[in-house]
Amino acid sequence: MPAAAEVETLKVSTKSNPNSVAGAMAGAIRSSGAVLVQVVGAGALNQATKASVIARGILATSGLDIIVTPSFADIEIDGEARTALRLRLEDREHRTVGPDDPGRPAPPPPSDAPW
Amino acid sequence: MPAAAEVETLKVSTKSNPNSVAGAMAGAIRSSGAVLVQVVGAGALNQATKASVIARGILATSGLDIIVTPSFADIEIDGEARTALRLRLEDREHRTVGPDDPGRPAPPPPSDAPW
Repeated sequence: MPAAAEVETLKVSTKSNPNSVAGAMAGAIRSSGAVLVQVVGAGALNQATKASVIARGILATSGLDIIVTPSFADIEIDGEARTALRLRLEDREHRTVGPDDPGRPAPPPPSDAPW
Repeated sequence: MPAAAEVETLKVSTKSNPNSVAGAMAGAIRSSGAVLVQVVGAGALNQATKASVIARGILATSGLDIIVTPSFADIEIDGEARTALRLRLEDREHRTVGPDDPGRPAPPPPSDAPW
């Protein structure tokens, strides 16, 4: 991962398709190690959270354990102050994979396995 | 933390107060190291996510970095199959604090600090 890779911010709305958002999340995490998702309102948060579950599944095949840290964000929409929710998605242990990583094979059993 | 401590499941609804839920989350995490939150619907998810942000702030004073792992859960309500969202909250590095932990003081500056 290049040190300068910037973390992308995705804006998700009520009308966003969770599968499409999940693909964008996975791509951004592969590129820079993390992604930010910004939502305003319960419907948009719902789509973003469903997408997060799907992205977790996609990136689990690359050996990543994606976790979410939520925070509030003060933003302005059409000149009006609003409170958005921001979700940061990244690997639990800050691990990264390259954009072309095909997914890791399952790890071998521990050496003290009984078989 | 006792090894047998069971992870509590909180059910959050549209009408739940985020501050109250955050307090319950923090208490459950102090008791057992993690908490599960189950929601059905966008309004309930919104309250649960706001509460998660607040709980992160509460437990940061105890030195914990609370992260969320979302998943789908097939549940039954009044005999009807529904898909719920489940949020698992726990410390990023699986650290725990006792239920009576008053919060940790800020760590001292690193020993190679220039002052």
